[in-house]
Amino acid sequence: MVSSELLRRYPFFASLDEKQLEAIAEITQEKSYPKGTLLVKENTTATCLALLIDGDIDLIFSGGGEGAISNALVGSIAAGEVYGVSSLIEPYRYTATAKATMPVKVIEVDGLALRAMVEKDPKLGYIMMRNVAIAVLERLRYTQVELAAARA
Amino acid sequence: MVSSELLRRYPFFASLDEKQLEAIAEITQEKSYPKGTLLVKENTTATCLALLIDGDIDLIFSGGGEGAISNALVGSIAAGEVYGVSSLIEPYRYTATAKATMPVKVIEVDGLALRAMVEKDPKLGYIMMRNVAIAVLERLRYTQVELAAARA
Repeated sequence: MVSSELLRRYPFFASLDEKQLEAIAEITQEKSYPKGTLLVKENTTATCLALLIDGDIDLIFSGGGEGAISNALVGSIAAGEVYGVSSLIEPYRYTATAKATMPVKVIEVDGLALRAMVEKDPKLGYIMMRNVAIAVLERLRYTQVELAAARA
Repeated sequence: MVSSELLRRYPFFASLDEKQLEAIAEITQEKSYPKGTLLVKENTTATCLALLIDGDIDLIFSGGGEGAISNALVGSIAAGEVYGVSSLIEPYRYTATAKATMPVKVIEVDGLALRAMVEKDPKLGYIMMRNVAIAVLERLRYTQVELAAARA
């Protein structure tokens, strides 16, 4: 587990109260991975919500095996941002592959345990889902800008 | 207002209970707009969450006034899908312009009233935010596929 103080430093967790932070800290681990690690794999069951502390991550889309596209870069995760939000959202499958482009340090939350917590406690669920929606909408906005640029 | 039965037909609202549906139905209106109507405008205050019943909507990004990009198509809304989710997500500003590409029929929820309801009732808040997150993640997935195709 990590300390609740560590979690509180990040906007994604900052609006939780002390009791909620302590409960999440118990199902959370700090980990380091070398450059090139595939942190999550597209179209596999999403079991981990993670926050990047140090480093940089590429989001890669395989093209769904359709042939025309392969391994396109469709986004990136910067320090302080979350990935693996699909672990909280049906159908609970990662939509892209996340690859460490340098050595990374991350905070990993057990997605199955977190899902059970948010389903049991609507107050926590509301805050977590709101923060997930904020994170996904920011990423959508970024991806729309990239798409507009690619089509310009 | 609309009937709770009408709302229940759409997956976005289907998981709400009868009391929650009736409360939302009271702050909801059914409206029709002609082809070409700008239903929401990029970078204005988001006050309306809406569900497209009939027709088709383009999502357009202005390029933020930076010059290189202008009015790029960055997505579309099909019947049964929601738009204006920014009315529930800080900083409450629309991220793109939504333009009716044909005559449309929509269900418009008063975003300010809905925001007050979800902040007061965490159970409703959890379900609504979860459904918003599902909708935004689906749109992100679509936009990533489009971006991958544009870069291929």
